[in-house]
Amino acid sequence: MKYLLMAAAAASLVFPVQAQEPTPIPSPGEIAAAAPAADWIAIAPSDLLVMDLTPDAAGKPRRVVIQLLPAPFSQGWIGNIRKLAAAHWWDGTSVNRVQDNYVAQWGDATEKKPLPDGLATVPEGDYVLPVSQPKMCAGRALAVCQPAANGLTSSDIRFSGAQSRDAYAGAVGFYRGWPVAADMQIQSIRPDAQAAGSTAWPIHCYGAVGVGRNMSPDTGSGAELYAVIGQAPRHLDRNIAVVGRVIVGIEHLASLPRGTGALGFYEEPGERVPIKSIRLATELPVSERPTFEYLSTDSASFARYADARANRRDPFFIRPAGGADICNIPVPVRAVAAK
Amino acid sequence: MKYLLMAAAAASLVFPVQAQEPTPIPSPGEIAAAAPAADWIAIAPSDLLVMDLTPDAAGKPRRVVIQLLPAPFSQGWIGNIRKLAAAHWWDGTSVNRVQDNYVAQWGDATEKKPLPDGLATVPEGDYVLPVSQPKMCAGRALAVCQPAANGLTSSDIRFSGAQSRDAYAGAVGFYRGWPVAADMQIQSIRPDAQAAGSTAWPIHCYGAVGVGRNMSPDTGSGAELYAVIGQAPRHLDRNIAVVGRVIVGIEHLASLPRGTGALGFYEEPGERVPIKSIRLATELPVSERPTFEYLSTDSASFARYADARANRRDPFFIRPAGGADICNIPVPVRAVAAK
Repeated sequence: MKYLLMAAAAASLVFPVQAQEPTPIPSPGEIAAAAPAADWIAIAPSDLLVMDLTPDAAGKPRRVVIQLLPAPFSQGWIGNIRKLAAAHWWDGTSVNRVQDNYVAQWGDATEKKPLPDGLATVPEGDYVLPVSQPKMCAGRALAVCQPAANGLTSSDIRFSGAQSRDAYAGAVGFYRGWPVAADMQIQSIRPDAQAAGSTAWPIHCYGAVGVGRNMSPDTGSGAELYAVIGQAPRHLDRNIAVVGRVIVGIEHLASLPRGTGALGFYEEPGERVPIKSIRLATELPVSERPTFEYLSTDSASFARYADARANRRDPFFIRPAGGADICNIPVPVRAVAAK
Repeated sequence: MKYLLMAAAAASLVFPVQAQEPTPIPSPGEIAAAAPAADWIAIAPSDLLVMDLTPDAAGKPRRVVIQLLPAPFSQGWIGNIRKLAAAHWWDGTSVNRVQDNYVAQWGDATEKKPLPDGLATVPEGDYVLPVSQPKMCAGRALAVCQPAANGLTSSDIRFSGAQSRDAYAGAVGFYRGWPVAADMQIQSIRPDAQAAGSTAWPIHCYGAVGVGRNMSPDTGSGAELYAVIGQAPRHLDRNIAVVGRVIVGIEHLASLPRGTGALGFYEEPGERVPIKSIRLATELPVSERPTFEYLSTDSASFARYADARANRRDPFFIRPAGGADICNIPVPVRAVAAK
């Protein structure tokens, strides 16, 4: 969580601290680390995908853990992904594409492996969700205010001024631990404003996992997945399904050799990186399940953390930015001992 | 330049094109490729640093080419960097730190290698430049309008509405092929608006090269450099000097194994990646000099390119974003045959 750019490792550990100096202002990482236990929320093992690549050249294991998005976002694709994992469909497939500053993508390179029965065909409309405004209900018919079956209300999302100047959306914020965007203006989030037709959607930040697809109206089954390994490709938002994010081991994807073919595909089959297995954590023996918590994005600790990300005042910084891109406010996630 | 997320390479080359279909709307890359020769500007060899890492495990060469920022930005540090390159100071040093989604950093791991004589100590004030507004001169004393010796006028920067919603600055745009930010509001860029005390600065996008430093007031000599290999760390803007950008070979840095020490430093000396040499291109034999051009950010072609980055309408996309982060509008650079 530290971001100092020091001359070298040795020097970086020797801070010039004077006896009279006030307590240094905590860094964002220190704020998160100091958050009370009540601010941390357990991630259900049913929301974790564990991907084991074959070991690297030195024999070191390469495990990537992916957290799936919570309902109501992207549930059609996520349902398919659970079925694919349960069928062990990805075992023996591979990472086939690594494009610098963009994505690492995996799936069946042959495109001939039969998919499990019962996968849903998800419509493009599911890239976004309707957002209603419950506080507008006073004096109106309930139906006007009631969220759609798979919808959200704007009060479900924590919008923040710190990251309100977003090039891609009228508003951005956090929904149950996830960065999301909405097409309403930040002003219209006020209870007294109009939000007819507003929608919200999950966004592509570093580490986001999405569903590869062919040309529209195809939306992808979920068998072909990618993880973002560069600048947030937000132009993909609403054009392709985000289904989760890598919470451990993104470096095993981000440090792979780049493919030299078109779009970063590996040109030689031997360059592909074999996937040993992908499992829902619920399928692993309890003793082997990775367990994680995320910092509640509704907590005061998170609000302080986000403010500190937008206004770095810890010792290395001389000028706080006064704002932060939503993708530069990664939601803290930590491994915990299994309970 | 293509960004499609197709099911696989083979499928991606088989577009369902119908006979009656209108000509597809060009992608940003296609717009840049079609720009007339007059819109491309040669990069002077004196502005290119050529870094050769030792070959990779398979014996393949790893060359990284860095373009230095044009005057008047960061010239104190860049003067030092030219001296360090001329002294062959980096030869035999190494990449010592690779932190995922952040930076790859190189220099002298021992911190004991003497620096060449005559390096400047650059003040923190040089992280930004004053910006004056020449069109406000009418009816005023010339001194009010004249830019400082190392200053800019706001008309030197091409501001654009497409990327105006920036979390870190009042305005962002392009200066002679480089993304820059300014602390004036976009409205104040109008000739009739006030801009007293406005400043501009180069920004940290993917591939940006900056100067490692110790705690303030140190600003770094330029001997310790890093390249951004993840989400644009814009909170470093105005806190640390940006001096250039990688235009070729960023993958040789971005795909290096991540360091497992604090801040991504390599823990074992054997993990460091040796630097064979860093040279200004002017020091290479003419026949070996890499030659490049960038697409003029003042050209109509670039304006169309930037608009297309903000509103993807090429066939894969179903919904244009209506905006783009400044770091998602990379300035096109191309290799050309030496003249």
